[in-house]
Amino acid sequence: MLDPSSPALEKARTGTVVAGTLHGVGLGPGDPELLTVRAVRLIQSSPVLAYFAKAGRRGNARAIVDQWIAEGTEEMPLLYPVTTEIHFADDGYVSALSGFYAEAAERIAEKLAGGQDVALVCEGDPMFYGSFMHLFTRLKDRFEVSITAGVSGMSGCWAAAGQPMTWGDDILTVLPGTLDLEALTERLRQTDAAVIMKLGSNFPKVREAIRAAGLLERAIYVERGTMAGETIVPLIAKTDDKAPYFSMILIPGEGRRP
Amino acid sequence: MLDPSSPALEKARTGTVVAGTLHGVGLGPGDPELLTVRAVRLIQSSPVLAYFAKAGRRGNARAIVDQWIAEGTEEMPLLYPVTTEIHFADDGYVSALSGFYAEAAERIAEKLAGGQDVALVCEGDPMFYGSFMHLFTRLKDRFEVSITAGVSGMSGCWAAAGQPMTWGDDILTVLPGTLDLEALTERLRQTDAAVIMKLGSNFPKVREAIRAAGLLERAIYVERGTMAGETIVPLIAKTDDKAPYFSMILIPGEGRRP
Repeated sequence: MLDPSSPALEKARTGTVVAGTLHGVGLGPGDPELLTVRAVRLIQSSPVLAYFAKAGRRGNARAIVDQWIAEGTEEMPLLYPVTTEIHFADDGYVSALSGFYAEAAERIAEKLAGGQDVALVCEGDPMFYGSFMHLFTRLKDRFEVSITAGVSGMSGCWAAAGQPMTWGDDILTVLPGTLDLEALTERLRQTDAAVIMKLGSNFPKVREAIRAAGLLERAIYVERGTMAGETIVPLIAKTDDKAPYFSMILIPGEGRRP
Repeated sequence: MLDPSSPALEKARTGTVVAGTLHGVGLGPGDPELLTVRAVRLIQSSPVLAYFAKAGRRGNARAIVDQWIAEGTEEMPLLYPVTTEIHFADDGYVSALSGFYAEAAERIAEKLAGGQDVALVCEGDPMFYGSFMHLFTRLKDRFEVSITAGVSGMSGCWAAAGQPMTWGDDILTVLPGTLDLEALTERLRQTDAAVIMKLGSNFPKVREAIRAAGLLERAIYVERGTMAGETIVPLIAKTDDKAPYFSMILIPGEGRRP
């Protein structure tokens, strides 16, 4: 039976189409069991599932939702023209990405305007460094949007490491590895706890900043946290210079503990 | 049929008891649908459910799991002797809390030693300013412990506010409202995005620091995010001095957006 409030029935009754809702759905850090109950419900009830991926790849978001997709769901991969091959400050990067987001927003808008809900899923938490935000800003004034918070990648990593992260009055600073050596070192010196994300080619510089701030022995390196192939090691034990872009370093706080 | 690896069967076979596992389970920001699939599974499969509450109250953690508890689960409320009535720097606070955590750890240890798994649930994410950490440090060397990351309170708040929080290379700083005015102001001046937690009686001072840092117009006040009675207002529109301890203020970043 059709839900009495379904867009299809509403259309039949009034001769007009009621636009669908865009659901921005966080998928958590990688383990498919770390989706929220609400994320699973929205993925299974939305006729269209949109996700970001790099051209030629299936993408991690699609892999995480694999066991949760309902039969008959229409899939809409949104394929990045570039990811880290061009520097983000390059004009080519900005214009390629900006065109890509505009086009992706229009593909989703077409489904919404036709009365279908779209679940746009993304790794981690959608409003925390998420690609979702670029489509959110382009669509929020035209359509209904709901946001479903997800477990952030960093929460997944410190849980996987079995590492309490912030105590009492600890200050936590989240730093992108793209900052320069001096800025990273200074920020690390001033905080109680830190997470450094976006490693990739920034990794040797980030390690140097951690050493300069005197924090090498407290730092933990996490790669593929909560997923197959997870690696968690003290940073001091990692001797090579290779780190995927989405790996991260945790520097736990040491605050008040009764 | 009993699972062949179940503690009960193992006990029957060997005449010894195999200790249970302590599951530290994050419950997310308050909406019961924001539990992870794994959190629901562990709550339903653990014979003992432990949770923190203030003496005389049911507590928010217990309220969040209400719809998920399996019949026959043994409940173990862990009742704080004090919460915010005594200042945390007071010797009485430290010794009361320290005795409370030691006693709570022993109550849980008894169940684990008897072969039962215990799900110790807590609001938000267990390793991020969580009371769970105080029992984790007391039990981790004696028993198996698993950690299930949860959606943090801050992620719930910025999702509820429909507010992208960090873009591109934004630095995020998480600040406890317990810091003094000068420290708060200085930290706010230096960051791109900020979350200020633990408001309560600190709220007027926190607002003053935000004003001094020139950020009043960007700040958003969130109370009971994702729960019944949720309030989300621009800070500038909030004219009274009252804020619960677990309310928070968000100052979204304004970084790179192609």
